[in-house]
Amino acid sequence: MTNTIEGRNPVLEALHSNRPIGKILLAKNSERHGVIAEIIHLAQSSAIPIEYVERPAIDRLSQTSANQGVLAITIVKEYAELEELLAITRSKNEPALYVVLDGIEDPHNLGAILRTADASGVHGVIIRERRAVGLTPVVEKASAGAIEYVPVVSVANISRTLETLKKNNVWVVGIDQSAEANYTEIDYKPATAIVIGGEGKGLSDLVKKNCDFLASIPMKGKIASLNASVAAAVALYEVVRQRI
Amino acid sequence: MTNTIEGRNPVLEALHSNRPIGKILLAKNSERHGVIAEIIHLAQSSAIPIEYVERPAIDRLSQTSANQGVLAITIVKEYAELEELLAITRSKNEPALYVVLDGIEDPHNLGAILRTADASGVHGVIIRERRAVGLTPVVEKASAGAIEYVPVVSVANISRTLETLKKNNVWVVGIDQSAEANYTEIDYKPATAIVIGGEGKGLSDLVKKNCDFLASIPMKGKIASLNASVAAAVALYEVVRQRI
Repeated sequence: MTNTIEGRNPVLEALHSNRPIGKILLAKNSERHGVIAEIIHLAQSSAIPIEYVERPAIDRLSQTSANQGVLAITIVKEYAELEELLAITRSKNEPALYVVLDGIEDPHNLGAILRTADASGVHGVIIRERRAVGLTPVVEKASAGAIEYVPVVSVANISRTLETLKKNNVWVVGIDQSAEANYTEIDYKPATAIVIGGEGKGLSDLVKKNCDFLASIPMKGKIASLNASVAAAVALYEVVRQRI
Repeated sequence: MTNTIEGRNPVLEALHSNRPIGKILLAKNSERHGVIAEIIHLAQSSAIPIEYVERPAIDRLSQTSANQGVLAITIVKEYAELEELLAITRSKNEPALYVVLDGIEDPHNLGAILRTADASGVHGVIIRERRAVGLTPVVEKASAGAIEYVPVVSVANISRTLETLKKNNVWVVGIDQSAEANYTEIDYKPATAIVIGGEGKGLSDLVKKNCDFLASIPMKGKIASLNASVAAAVALYEVVRQRI
């Protein structure tokens, strides 16, 4: 299900408050300064696609008469709050399992990770608000429906979030291909958060410093890294294996 | 690197002999019967994209003057033969590890599986000739370069290939979500082939019957199956874990 947010300031507001937006339609002849420039900038930094269309295409989707040539299509899935996620997990009778994504940019990867998260019993996925993909329609599709079932928290600062998790007795394990420890050597039976870096970039130094453990997945061939969604799956199913 | 095959009969021949073709260009005004109809049919059954373009676009790519409005773009990677793969593996001082794909149709999945195959030390990937994607440019890109390093064998009949593998002392393990055994219960230290079914379809009954073991990957959520490339990765890294 989709919904619309219409007009310059409502769309800007929605971007600032980090509502899950699938795409933004902009009239082709819009002047690209002021609020519109800010909308374009924020959308780009959150990897939200912008389509430049003729004004009547926007008017057809518009549910008000005040779209000003700007319309954002939201998807119904709302982000969860971190506190909410911690509370949900406490109510379950099993050790927490979270996935933290430090800058995934490809919607297919985020969708695939949500699908695997559902399958492996993850309690929630934590993503970065900026320079990362959010919950877009492409993510929804790639998740094969899992987007409906896995709580997703969007946070401004991954490092601070890791600190909060650690205060809540969650062990934070970063998957980092330069780490000496093999990911299978870690004990995942206690509450655990698996941290996965962005495509091609891996974990940032600050995030690495905030992990309790860093571990690598063995690479036996010539390619230097696994796809991010594959790395997440391999680590998550090692958690499942250990917790049987 | 790419190369071209030009003219009606050479392209038809290339399709029959299962050369790795990235795409086929057809002049828009070609008559679509006879050899051309056969080319279209074979291309579709092998999931090779056809582009209908103006004749001068074909002439520009043509290296002969005899393209007849039909040009196939091949990719340089050639398929290996099964016997060759078995010989390469025997020359290595480690138990064989193969991946057999029973009808993967999505080039992104095949590319992702090749990338994971390289990373997990797979000796070769065996794919189905018909109703499955072959080595296309999209697969090449999705493999992040791994297509260059992992031998790929294309076979007419997966069941018969499994019999050949078994005669060569390879244990054949099918990943099948209806199986009772957990994939982690299998001993992967001997030579092993992991069989993965096509997207949404899983393994065919005949293929299942030809497996030594069937095993499932636990699904703890609401979604019924894993993405095919994720299932392959989870199984392959369990092999790596057991063989450390």
